[in-house]
Amino acid sequence: MDVSPVACCAPIAKQPLEESEAVELAALLKAVADPVRLRLLSMIGSHPDGEACVCDLTGAFDLSAPTISHHLKTLRNAGLIDGERRGTWVYYWIVPAQVARLGELFSPLAEPAATT
Amino acid sequence: MDVSPVACCAPIAKQPLEESEAVELAALLKAVADPVRLRLLSMIGSHPDGEACVCDLTGAFDLSAPTISHHLKTLRNAGLIDGERRGTWVYYWIVPAQVARLGELFSPLAEPAATT
Repeated sequence: MDVSPVACCAPIAKQPLEESEAVELAALLKAVADPVRLRLLSMIGSHPDGEACVCDLTGAFDLSAPTISHHLKTLRNAGLIDGERRGTWVYYWIVPAQVARLGELFSPLAEPAATT
Repeated sequence: MDVSPVACCAPIAKQPLEESEAVELAALLKAVADPVRLRLLSMIGSHPDGEACVCDLTGAFDLSAPTISHHLKTLRNAGLIDGERRGTWVYYWIVPAQVARLGELFSPLAEPAATT
């Protein structure tokens, strides 16, 4: 049986989640549990300017503009991205704190400080 | 606009995900994007012995044993937990490497090593 100390340190494995917290986190996870939305998130986050024009995003998918807009709205409603209209186009960027919440849940905590 | 350096360092924001990778990660995320499964994962991971008897899990939910079993099967199929039958009961434990994959996707990378 492989029960490494890594598991013990991820917040998901530190203590049982409260029901209300689980409901909230599940909603956040549902927002990213889709291949198109994951790709959109990575395309926005890795864009050289730190933000991406919707005009740069739609071309990568074999999907209609309204479908892409729907996925972007889902990410935005979950607080994972934000955006603003400038002229013809909407520009999107990642909201780091909200993305980090997902990471924190499943990541091992940093090396515990040595007790002296 | 808040584009902090934190965003730049999470793997999700380092480069656009390949479609095949996005499909695989979305399936893994779907497995945890449910309040009951998140709670089960946290209960198993935080159990003092590093593993939990299914008999310890069902009581916490107002759900039937077959429903809990279905959720446990989803987590197991996703590789997030594993288990084995011992006598009457099945015991489950977390698979740290698979849980860590979720964390790594959304977490800022560790402080980059100083270049000398």
